[in-house]
Amino acid sequence: MVRYKAILAYDGTDFAGFQRQARARTVQGEIEAALRHLNWTRRSILAAGRTDAGVHAVGQVIAFDLDWAHSPEDLLNALNARLPADVAVQHVQQVQEDFHPRFQALARRYRYTLFCHPVRHPLRERFAWRVWPELDVDLLRRAAEPLIGTHDFRAFGVPPRAGGSTVRQVFRASWARDAQAGYLFDVEANAFLFHMVRRMVRLQVEVALGKLPVEQIPRYLAGEFSEPVMGLAPPQGLCLLEVRYPHQGS
Amino acid sequence: MVRYKAILAYDGTDFAGFQRQARARTVQGEIEAALRHLNWTRRSILAAGRTDAGVHAVGQVIAFDLDWAHSPEDLLNALNARLPADVAVQHVQQVQEDFHPRFQALARRYRYTLFCHPVRHPLRERFAWRVWPELDVDLLRRAAEPLIGTHDFRAFGVPPRAGGSTVRQVFRASWARDAQAGYLFDVEANAFLFHMVRRMVRLQVEVALGKLPVEQIPRYLAGEFSEPVMGLAPPQGLCLLEVRYPHQGS
Repeated sequence: MVRYKAILAYDGTDFAGFQRQARARTVQGEIEAALRHLNWTRRSILAAGRTDAGVHAVGQVIAFDLDWAHSPEDLLNALNARLPADVAVQHVQQVQEDFHPRFQALARRYRYTLFCHPVRHPLRERFAWRVWPELDVDLLRRAAEPLIGTHDFRAFGVPPRAGGSTVRQVFRASWARDAQAGYLFDVEANAFLFHMVRRMVRLQVEVALGKLPVEQIPRYLAGEFSEPVMGLAPPQGLCLLEVRYPHQGS
Repeated sequence: MVRYKAILAYDGTDFAGFQRQARARTVQGEIEAALRHLNWTRRSILAAGRTDAGVHAVGQVIAFDLDWAHSPEDLLNALNARLPADVAVQHVQQVQEDFHPRFQALARRYRYTLFCHPVRHPLRERFAWRVWPELDVDLLRRAAEPLIGTHDFRAFGVPPRAGGSTVRQVFRASWARDAQAGYLFDVEANAFLFHMVRRMVRLQVEVALGKLPVEQIPRYLAGEFSEPVMGLAPPQGLCLLEVRYPHQGS
């Protein structure tokens, strides 16, 4: 029995999220079904994190134990042959038997994509949030700055376990403009609370639309409000880009 | 009764092409169904061109005659409220009653998107062709050059009407590299034969993979081969970007 680490990409549109559910189509459910065809008999795979319904990934990390007589490349191909069109393994490697994709992760990087357009746009709205009127990019950038650093993010979401810490360290939070894609918010932290990126984006968009003064953001981080940030940016703009580990191969 | 020109965007994935069919879901069918809710009673809309099953558009142009008491903006909103998520009107304006989106078009511009990646990639493959191994971009660019100009493209497709001319004037044919999207082939011509862009792309990719010498392309254009170009690039990489007319508003 060998432990394998695998990197997954999926189009979250038609999934009820990553985590297995009894009566809904999930990424975990599809992966486990594909593994069972390869005589995998464990109860559950391990994953770096759960993504919400409708959220995409190109760098989700999972781990599982399997008896496999062939190469990791053959395993990748065998899994991809069984998986549906909206999920695919990008990379497979053997790792140490105690590798855990969640507990050993140093950082997660997400990207949120939005674009400004006055009417529905079928090609872009699958992977991005449409916002109108036009946003002020300088305000977006000013809104992102205070998010960087170690803060208590309890106004931005709940921890994986009730009562757990809501302090997180944000290494990077920046907006870029791309001619094809629109506005890209790249954010990296040691870990995220549930809904944390989507609340961050919604709050920054409110600022960029002029609905909220940029000075409110440090006040949310200082714990001045007892209520959480109002509202979430929609899931289809969010994509889990990468999970980082202490050293390659672990 | 007033003639309206409308610009359409659609995700071609779940359509059996643009043109109405009795037993398949088409873009034309959806548009005409939405118009009928606005008491449109004509037999058929007019369109700049028919796109194949699976081909996308952000700049398809249609025209139709309608009694409408409100503004063009209201008409746009009324149509978009009735249309399914994968097709949307981008712009509506009144035009002269003899405006014809196909016969009066000066040029059509298409974009073909491809990316190089060793395994399936669910997020990118909806709107692009995945090619592996890595392509030589210089060869792609050298392959594109001879396509520019006025040529007999009969090796690249068939005309809309049997026996029609296969001479077309290509104004532009160029490859660009985009960090997000991959390789973008932008091609503009006065008009295209059926499958012409997809055969152009397939041929250039064969050249860039080193399977075909670049010198073969001028020979196809010179009519040296009695057989058409072998094979088509898949439809999901293709998008109709724009149709140009003699002057704005016509």
